[in-house]
Amino acid sequence: METKRTDIASLGEFGLIEHLTKALKPLNHSTVLGVGDDAAILDYKDKQVVVTTDLLLEGIHFDLTYVPLKHLGYKAAVVNFSDVYAMNAQPKQITVSLGLSKRFSVEDIEALYEGINLACSKYGVDVIGGDTSASYTGLTISITCLGEGDKETIVRRSGAKPSQLICVSGDLGAAYMGLQLLEREKTVFKGETEFKPAFEGKEYLLERQLKPEARKDIIERLAENDILPTSMIDISDGLSSELMHLCKNSEVGCRIYEDRIPIDYQTAVMAEEFNMNLVTAALNGGEDYELLFTVPIELHDQVAAIEGVRIIGHTTEKDLGAALITRDGLEVPLKAQGWVAPM
Amino acid sequence: METKRTDIASLGEFGLIEHLTKALKPLNHSTVLGVGDDAAILDYKDKQVVVTTDLLLEGIHFDLTYVPLKHLGYKAAVVNFSDVYAMNAQPKQITVSLGLSKRFSVEDIEALYEGINLACSKYGVDVIGGDTSASYTGLTISITCLGEGDKETIVRRSGAKPSQLICVSGDLGAAYMGLQLLEREKTVFKGETEFKPAFEGKEYLLERQLKPEARKDIIERLAENDILPTSMIDISDGLSSELMHLCKNSEVGCRIYEDRIPIDYQTAVMAEEFNMNLVTAALNGGEDYELLFTVPIELHDQVAAIEGVRIIGHTTEKDLGAALITRDGLEVPLKAQGWVAPM
Repeated sequence: METKRTDIASLGEFGLIEHLTKALKPLNHSTVLGVGDDAAILDYKDKQVVVTTDLLLEGIHFDLTYVPLKHLGYKAAVVNFSDVYAMNAQPKQITVSLGLSKRFSVEDIEALYEGINLACSKYGVDVIGGDTSASYTGLTISITCLGEGDKETIVRRSGAKPSQLICVSGDLGAAYMGLQLLEREKTVFKGETEFKPAFEGKEYLLERQLKPEARKDIIERLAENDILPTSMIDISDGLSSELMHLCKNSEVGCRIYEDRIPIDYQTAVMAEEFNMNLVTAALNGGEDYELLFTVPIELHDQVAAIEGVRIIGHTTEKDLGAALITRDGLEVPLKAQGWVAPM
Repeated sequence: METKRTDIASLGEFGLIEHLTKALKPLNHSTVLGVGDDAAILDYKDKQVVVTTDLLLEGIHFDLTYVPLKHLGYKAAVVNFSDVYAMNAQPKQITVSLGLSKRFSVEDIEALYEGINLACSKYGVDVIGGDTSASYTGLTISITCLGEGDKETIVRRSGAKPSQLICVSGDLGAAYMGLQLLEREKTVFKGETEFKPAFEGKEYLLERQLKPEARKDIIERLAENDILPTSMIDISDGLSSELMHLCKNSEVGCRIYEDRIPIDYQTAVMAEEFNMNLVTAALNGGEDYELLFTVPIELHDQVAAIEGVRIIGHTTEKDLGAALITRDGLEVPLKAQGWVAPM
């Protein structure tokens, strides 16, 4: 059976945007007017607004050999939501701009939007605008996300003080291992027309790479337990790099403990298979989209009781710098690897 | 003398963003926190927020053979401001995401940002965030603009009623003629290493193409004279196309008069030189960034008295459709040409 392939030019730019967004009903009170005017109109009343943006380029941030368009759309939306949660705010609206080469059909873009819309409906976010344009090469996705928070509870990177607890949600390094796995299978399948590798027993790694989630649940649990982090950041470029951002912005140092870093069993198995250093993967892997945050030491018991959160160390005075304490008790200075995350 | 050329990789992504934005002080009270966290923080208090976004791709929207990077940055910002003014709102913040191939140096991006910052300081807008990324091909610019307006005075495309006056600011077709001129000179200079054509007497056309302005002044004059348009749109894709959007969204028809369409003298001279139909250029040329709006007929005298605004026709019942009345009194149906504007 042949796949249907409708030329984008047959709908035109206006037709395409209408086609993709006509089914969308606003989910939020703050969305006054969505797609269809010179600009969208929002009303946040007494809330503060947070804004974040991400540009994703084919070949740099994603490889369509092994990333289905629906997954790509889902992930492109979710990584923006993650930035908003990292402010202790709630994502409410996104704009989506697409640059499309002739390689892409209307059905392709429908698949991409299926993923975007799925993420939006799961996280309660409205698509309020965007732009589609022809492109000479590949696929370009630019998403801007707006969210809302209360002035008193929005959390920045800069609020940590010395001697506070450093916490992280979920586990680290799995998305990076998922990427290694996909890259390896891609090499194996080079030249074959269909990419159908066997990934049994490694589903978690693939899911973390291809369909990450933003930690809305952690934000909710913290609020339920009256825990307001003093600083927070999401882990997109690796724990090490994000921890250094947090320390720099807060003007503190830190000590984290190797044996406290949360790592999933599949991640460990895969690291051994690839003969890679597991801790390095967890520290520098990137694309975890977990939350890294600090809390006052008085909240130790409350935060330790939250499922899915691990205390991995503590902040120090600034002049002590940022370091990892290994299992052997050695102190190793942390380095930001400046990981440019593919997706 | 050689031009200085610093490799972008030498600064890194974080270094580059810091380098480009460190000198910026917020101009607006609503900008609580700009670049440097997971998201920017804004506080609009009792205002409504408008949001618009534009994606610009090299080779599709602009040609760096004849567009200096500083001008490109200026224009990329201003076209977004224009969308905000078209809502009768004020632009306040932008995010800027850039995809950069290896062809571009730090100095190139500084030139681009010089233009962006110039536009921002002229229009009172803050750069609050963004993203820079490597790219395999060319330059990608994605800008999202946020603005504020009062709930009671934000103007949509959909508010026109039959028998209202249709008004347009400035003059039309000049930016399109500027583009034709640049394209012609580009062909003439093909193969030469320096692009130094003579443009004497045609400065206005080039300025309209290379350094357009958003009509903040018109929005201010309308407010000063207590004129609240019933509908408004900015003219980016040509008068004809925008008028049809406005009519469709407002569910009205329209009649505009050929002899009322404002055209500059240089535009007319150039059309003759190119042997092009002048009215077609004014109707379909695109990139004018003028304002098209409707007002109740009772406001005729007030609106007619505003410098830089021309009444070009009136709305009708929907079933009469959209048409141009020629100088000979013929009624010609308007067509949307769906002009994809290069810049």
